[in-house]
Amino acid sequence: MKIARFSHKGAINFGIVDQSDTGATELVVLNGDPMFAGFDTTGERVPLADAPILAPVIPRSKVVAVGKNYRDHVAEMGGGEAPSEPLLFLKPNTSVIGPGDRIVRPPQSSRVDFEGELAVVIGSVAKNVAEADAAGVIFGYTIANDVTARDLQRSDGQWARAKGFDTFCPLGPVIETEFDLAASNLETRLNGVLKQSAPLTDMIHSVPAIVAYASAVFTLLPGDVILTGTPAGIEQMESGDTVEVEVSGIGVLRNTVV
Amino acid sequence: MKIARFSHKGAINFGIVDQSDTGATELVVLNGDPMFAGFDTTGERVPLADAPILAPVIPRSKVVAVGKNYRDHVAEMGGGEAPSEPLLFLKPNTSVIGPGDRIVRPPQSSRVDFEGELAVVIGSVAKNVAEADAAGVIFGYTIANDVTARDLQRSDGQWARAKGFDTFCPLGPVIETEFDLAASNLETRLNGVLKQSAPLTDMIHSVPAIVAYASAVFTLLPGDVILTGTPAGIEQMESGDTVEVEVSGIGVLRNTVV
Repeated sequence: MKIARFSHKGAINFGIVDQSDTGATELVVLNGDPMFAGFDTTGERVPLADAPILAPVIPRSKVVAVGKNYRDHVAEMGGGEAPSEPLLFLKPNTSVIGPGDRIVRPPQSSRVDFEGELAVVIGSVAKNVAEADAAGVIFGYTIANDVTARDLQRSDGQWARAKGFDTFCPLGPVIETEFDLAASNLETRLNGVLKQSAPLTDMIHSVPAIVAYASAVFTLLPGDVILTGTPAGIEQMESGDTVEVEVSGIGVLRNTVV
Repeated sequence: MKIARFSHKGAINFGIVDQSDTGATELVVLNGDPMFAGFDTTGERVPLADAPILAPVIPRSKVVAVGKNYRDHVAEMGGGEAPSEPLLFLKPNTSVIGPGDRIVRPPQSSRVDFEGELAVVIGSVAKNVAEADAAGVIFGYTIANDVTARDLQRSDGQWARAKGFDTFCPLGPVIETEFDLAASNLETRLNGVLKQSAPLTDMIHSVPAIVAYASAVFTLLPGDVILTGTPAGIEQMESGDTVEVEVSGIGVLRNTVV
């Protein structure tokens, strides 16, 4: 089931993505946020074309991200050992934007890169979750672009600034609640040209391993998002560029750069 | 004016710290959160002794922290140059605890340190604030302990985990809205023994400079907290220890370690 968050009649709603009898894509409007209120429908259906899609979730607490989680990306970043444990960092919720929103290159940086990633949306309060129980605290999966000011990442050492600027965490377009990671690939295209392409099974640390590891540090709250790392192929973006991150089975997260 | 957040009759309230006619400390109960609702009093007064004090603010978005902001602390951490710009990192709001709450040493670390710090509480939405305008977006000041798993800080490189564990951000006891930084000192005591002592004017980057710098990266939201760095004297804490961070003009933030 694909869940979208959208603007409709001046309010923010959630809906299930569905096809109409004529094959048009529609949103089956839900009563409240399904993460808390379940999948209770209002009976209303809204054509997708009439409903601006927003980031599917705004984390109330945090975006936890994992660095260096694909071997080919570790190699392109200058090699060294892939970390034996997930390398965690944080992005603030003020960096989140939605599909179609603009990524703003800040004046402090002269090199802003895309990093296409699978994102995990946490659905319940989670602390010290065992790997075997991780699926039970996951609400669903979406797509992220872990936008990074590469020059500041190197000069600061700490990544909070380089990865935390406003607009540096596009999320969306939807949350897929029944996602088959093992059958899925991630692709990133810059102005239509393929730049990143990898099966999600190339991750060094699996989603259950990351959830277990992160929840042994932080209490994860419903709506917290975990970015699972990027494969090789990162590259900088210029003003006017369009970047698309596609995860098969979820959709395409498309943003432009200004 | 000193603002406390406290538990009373099963609800969370805010109050102004005041003296009764007999000299007892009381809380003048406010209607709502003064950050949003102003200083409208209910007429009720509660003895401080009857009101468990909570963390004065739970950031809805983020705790921004500054590393290496006192020269003597830079020296004790192995020297090197003090950074020419504020070195920012993030702590999640799930790490916040209040006065009297227990700091929990996690099993992943064998060395957990205190770091006494002045904390700035942001009062309005702030982006690209000039140094000269910083005071206008500050609601007040409180005290923080930037608890740090020193071994993991070194081994991870990124500080998100080492400084982000649950209970690693004690805040309180109150927010002082009229604080004279230039006349104030910070002291940290471990089991009553003085460990850190510095005038707040020893900061390398001033509070207005930090607010300007951080707000050029992140949109700061009301309730966001900025930790301004720790002076020399950091040391590890063991189970059973009591750590007190005192900032003259604000109060004493006291926590025990388990």
